[in-house]
Amino acid sequence: MLIVPERDIADLLTREASFDAVEKVFAAMAAGDAYNFPVIREAIGHEDALYGFKGGFDGKGMTLGLKAGGYWPHNLEKRGLINHQSTVFLFDPDTGKVAAMVGGNYLTALRTAAASSVSIKHLARKDAKVMGMIGAGHQATFQLRAALEQRDFDKVIGWNYHPEMLPNIEKVASEAGVPFEAVPLEGIVEADVVISITSTFAPTVMANHISPGTHIACMGTDTKGKQEVEAALLARATVFTDEVAQSISIGEAQHAVAQGLIAESDVHQIGAVINGTHAGRTSDDEITLFDGTGVGLQDLAVAASVVELAVAQGIAIEVDF
Amino acid sequence: MLIVPERDIADLLTREASFDAVEKVFAAMAAGDAYNFPVIREAIGHEDALYGFKGGFDGKGMTLGLKAGGYWPHNLEKRGLINHQSTVFLFDPDTGKVAAMVGGNYLTALRTAAASSVSIKHLARKDAKVMGMIGAGHQATFQLRAALEQRDFDKVIGWNYHPEMLPNIEKVASEAGVPFEAVPLEGIVEADVVISITSTFAPTVMANHISPGTHIACMGTDTKGKQEVEAALLARATVFTDEVAQSISIGEAQHAVAQGLIAESDVHQIGAVINGTHAGRTSDDEITLFDGTGVGLQDLAVAASVVELAVAQGIAIEVDF
Repeated sequence: MLIVPERDIADLLTREASFDAVEKVFAAMAAGDAYNFPVIREAIGHEDALYGFKGGFDGKGMTLGLKAGGYWPHNLEKRGLINHQSTVFLFDPDTGKVAAMVGGNYLTALRTAAASSVSIKHLARKDAKVMGMIGAGHQATFQLRAALEQRDFDKVIGWNYHPEMLPNIEKVASEAGVPFEAVPLEGIVEADVVISITSTFAPTVMANHISPGTHIACMGTDTKGKQEVEAALLARATVFTDEVAQSISIGEAQHAVAQGLIAESDVHQIGAVINGTHAGRTSDDEITLFDGTGVGLQDLAVAASVVELAVAQGIAIEVDF
Repeated sequence: MLIVPERDIADLLTREASFDAVEKVFAAMAAGDAYNFPVIREAIGHEDALYGFKGGFDGKGMTLGLKAGGYWPHNLEKRGLINHQSTVFLFDPDTGKVAAMVGGNYLTALRTAAASSVSIKHLARKDAKVMGMIGAGHQATFQLRAALEQRDFDKVIGWNYHPEMLPNIEKVASEAGVPFEAVPLEGIVEADVVISITSTFAPTVMANHISPGTHIACMGTDTKGKQEVEAALLARATVFTDEVAQSISIGEAQHAVAQGLIAESDVHQIGAVINGTHAGRTSDDEITLFDGTGVGLQDLAVAASVVELAVAQGIAIEVDF
């Protein structure tokens, strides 16, 4: 079996490889060739940790396995370790034998950024010029970096609850040669593409903050009760997601569905747009909304890419297991 | 992190170490210190394989992780590999980082045998003389080998649907210096301890095949619909199990509960007997029945033992992950 440690991933894994892997697996999911298993997520009653497994099988890409790990909130303060810790295990679908183990921390950031980036490629207006960011944490930097590759943006505008964190995303914009401007929340109305990547239990982005024609990717809601945008916005938008079942239960669509503003059938798989079985955006003043909930198959797909790259560069550790 | 490949397990892992690990974790489960996560089990639609995860956390033994793998029915004929393939992954409960990877195939056989053996230690009559086996497959040999260490048996009697397989268990008995006798199914009435380890969807052992005072361990039922013994036997017996929720849903107790012959509250944790909070057997003519459904915590406990043994013997593979 092959091992690719966490320390090697950042040098190995490119945004392009992550993007390709995620785009392909979203397509396979919509075509019925790949599916995610039920998610296990447990508060284990030790170190306030959340631990669990996200598994799946992609019969097209032939990836089988799981990401295991979770959130250890005291890691940083107590031990100088990052709080999110995960590892991806790939299995040989022909035999059931373990095939690879891959560090999952950096990979998770890149696969999450790839998801919103895939949605921008397929749903944003081609002439989008203003990129808007809601959120300025560690994840937001990965999101923005990937988003800026999808359109020829003139400007990045950003808002964060803690404005002192805005330099995080300003740095990413300037590295990409795009000017940055901090705006009040209402100022986000100017954006043609918005990524919302916050962790909140009350909506921040109201329906009137989003202009006709905008594409918004909501990337922060992955738990029952969390909410980034007003439910009324989903009623106004054409709604897409990675996985419908997650979107309506733990994703951004949970609230609009619960309030009867939209039905499950109003939530479409982004993979259908990639495959051409859903038209996607059909006019320049349509609002498109991508609800990125995060699925195990994204992790497996990107991990499989990492293994390929590590083998090609001769740095995968081989263990006779 | 540490790696112990499948090829090293048989030499490392003793029946004693398996027994101790399983006894301790059953006790921790009954004390509320350890719990199993929901089981994921998926027919992936490739190679007719069943694949999944059995995870848990033992806050006393401090083991966290999962066994991943499953059943690939064509492995042997197509590739010369065994059909059951699994791997155990242990995580550090303090940090969420992966700590060890251990081959899970041989380990699964030993932890399953340890479960019935623990039940015999705590529930069979001290003066048990006749050991009865229903089933004579690969698993049955592990079961019998472990059982023979728990009492001073005079004789092993055995029945199997395919009598030509009986030499498998006869060999184990004679290696332990105990005479073996093949019997008709009704002949099992002579046994003081019975292990039933078959895979059937209709009961083989009827209530009148089991004498008063006998302890029977039913080890073959782990799926909805499977059944080894007549439901009426559970009504006559005091019923114990590894995990009540599994016993009444996928274990041997599923049928007796569904038929209203016993209630969920009639199924007791074997760990409570180990801990002394349940009296266990209270008379010499009581029938005790152990429903061994198999839980992830058994795998984790035995895997943790394997790692300890491998480190002590200097054969664990260390990878800087």
